[in-house]
Amino acid sequence: MPPVAPRPGDAIFASVERVNAELFTLTYGAIVRQLLTDLEEVEEVNKQLDQMGYNIGVRLVDEFLAKSNVSRCVDFKETAEVIAKVGFKMFLGVTASVSNWDAEGTACSIILEDNPLVDFVELPDTCQGLYYCNILSGVIRGALEMVSMKTEVTWLRDMLRGDDAFELQVKLLKQVPEEYPYKDDE
Amino acid sequence: MPPVAPRPGDAIFASVERVNAELFTLTYGAIVRQLLTDLEEVEEVNKQLDQMGYNIGVRLVDEFLAKSNVSRCVDFKETAEVIAKVGFKMFLGVTASVSNWDAEGTACSIILEDNPLVDFVELPDTCQGLYYCNILSGVIRGALEMVSMKTEVTWLRDMLRGDDAFELQVKLLKQVPEEYPYKDDE
Repeated sequence: MPPVAPRPGDAIFASVERVNAELFTLTYGAIVRQLLTDLEEVEEVNKQLDQMGYNIGVRLVDEFLAKSNVSRCVDFKETAEVIAKVGFKMFLGVTASVSNWDAEGTACSIILEDNPLVDFVELPDTCQGLYYCNILSGVIRGALEMVSMKTEVTWLRDMLRGDDAFELQVKLLKQVPEEYPYKDDE
Repeated sequence: MPPVAPRPGDAIFASVERVNAELFTLTYGAIVRQLLTDLEEVEEVNKQLDQMGYNIGVRLVDEFLAKSNVSRCVDFKETAEVIAKVGFKMFLGVTASVSNWDAEGTACSIILEDNPLVDFVELPDTCQGLYYCNILSGVIRGALEMVSMKTEVTWLRDMLRGDDAFELQVKLLKQVPEEYPYKDDE
């Protein structure tokens, strides 16, 4: 059976339940502040944000597959494109782009020029070393693990550190050749 | 100069930046889980959620006043209506109702039948005593304090505790008769 065409991220975003982005931004800021207070070590905060993101990604992938009509991607290249073009649009309302592929097609960059998580955010000097948006890397890692791709996701550029964009490197470590855990409804 | 009519919550909600509600719900769930792990005492978690909400409310009121065209409310009754009809719609995309006024017009209930914070949430037995949505009471308290109303906000009903709705009691403790800190643009 030929796969149903994925719905464009815009259309999905328009059709799902949403909340005000500023409320989300401030709520996320409250989490980061809380973690900085409780954990003290910036490195620990990075880890914790990544772990929280992982737990979210593991669950969010269900909503993603249910709403997007995306079924099995043919390879990691297609997967990365779908995350950037459909995933980011569907959840954060922004579009990301994919570039910097390595020769093997197992590592690339996802680049975000607009990022609602950081509106109104300025980091104090005491937060050097913090990856403020580390929840995002965790979400991607968690979501991909649910579709049998073990990845490593790291920040290459961060606008809160003075870079001109947010750049996440996604490296495919292992692709488990098991049955796709979700069935299409069709 | 007659005040400009407030914009309906629906129209404002449609015009502001938004993010996917499920992402917000899962992110909020991750905060609560984190606090439960770090603080151990449920009572402390309630306090911390309320405090986080307070900090958010103090900042969110700016966006609210800027986008809603709401200017000075004539009294606490009007204020409560605006929170329920415009505020909840604008930020969470849901409508709340106001009832149970006391004789003096200084205490009422804001009732929510739909609450995106609790989608997919079930509390384990170890969380008895938790006010999962306590961030909301903090937001209202913080926002009202910025418009010179000192309030006490407490939960009377909570669907996660088996009630048939969420009911927040808002009690006006003191109204500081100072200049309204925001100027209309008109």
